[in-house]
Amino acid sequence: MGACSLSARGQNYLLREARATDLAQIIALMADDEIRPAEHADAGDAGEQYLEVFNEIHADPAHTLIVVEGNDGAIAGTMQLTMLPGLARRGAKRMQIEAVRVASALRGGGLGTEMIRWAISEAESKRIPLVQLTSDAQRQDAHRFYEGLGFTASHVGFKMHLAISP
Amino acid sequence: MGACSLSARGQNYLLREARATDLAQIIALMADDEIRPAEHADAGDAGEQYLEVFNEIHADPAHTLIVVEGNDGAIAGTMQLTMLPGLARRGAKRMQIEAVRVASALRGGGLGTEMIRWAISEAESKRIPLVQLTSDAQRQDAHRFYEGLGFTASHVGFKMHLAISP
Repeated sequence: MGACSLSARGQNYLLREARATDLAQIIALMADDEIRPAEHADAGDAGEQYLEVFNEIHADPAHTLIVVEGNDGAIAGTMQLTMLPGLARRGAKRMQIEAVRVASALRGGGLGTEMIRWAISEAESKRIPLVQLTSDAQRQDAHRFYEGLGFTASHVGFKMHLAISP
Repeated sequence: MGACSLSARGQNYLLREARATDLAQIIALMADDEIRPAEHADAGDAGEQYLEVFNEIHADPAHTLIVVEGNDGAIAGTMQLTMLPGLARRGAKRMQIEAVRVASALRGGGLGTEMIRWAISEAESKRIPLVQLTSDAQRQDAHRFYEGLGFTASHVGFKMHLAISP
């Protein structure tokens, strides 16, 4: 994928594929989360483990880890796209969006909208007819956000946590 | 993965990875669906397209297309498992279950339960701490089914269909 320029609240951002050197900032963004901060380690706490996962994501063309970088070099947002092949719907691929995060100071300023719109345009350009994601049932703001972008809350997302240390 | 023997209503079934020769039966199972039958082609209608998708799923170790075969050789159920790497939750992998189908004549007889239990045990054996899936909001029976298996309906599943021919 090529890089892309985004704009929100008069600021310009560069959307691009993540690099290993972005990892510490990406992990910090994930920890900056009002619902589940405790589930994330500091980047320094588990650096090697994160690098291993980053390399796995990077090595498989089905996955693309995206970051949005401000003019100051700070990572302002991240999301992970996965292309899912499947036999349903006449063999149509799906794009799944996971791990969407925008820096807390920038939320509500339109950057998330620009990121998701870019993901939708990426699906269109790859002729993928379905984009899907799940959002925690507690995140009412996020639900309005995705509905405002044209998503339909047509499904229930089920999770099961297994008692396994990662 | 190795094959596994399942039992439901006194019948034995073999759970195994799908082969290209199973495709016609898998497509027929997907068409045997009370909510979205019209979205599926007959296997003969788009055979080459399905084979292409099957090969793509088969070539990527992240995806496993499963079938459950009866003693008579008929495919009684199918599901697709995808291992998703990600940086969230300290870099824990997720197993995503998609496209779960059980032959309509066998529904309610426990075969689906055995299939999902097997998927959970597969996640455990691969040390994957999170299993996730989405289910159409209309499928109340399926929701009770997944909750009965220990899943929590903690998320809302959003979809967006794009006007692209697959």
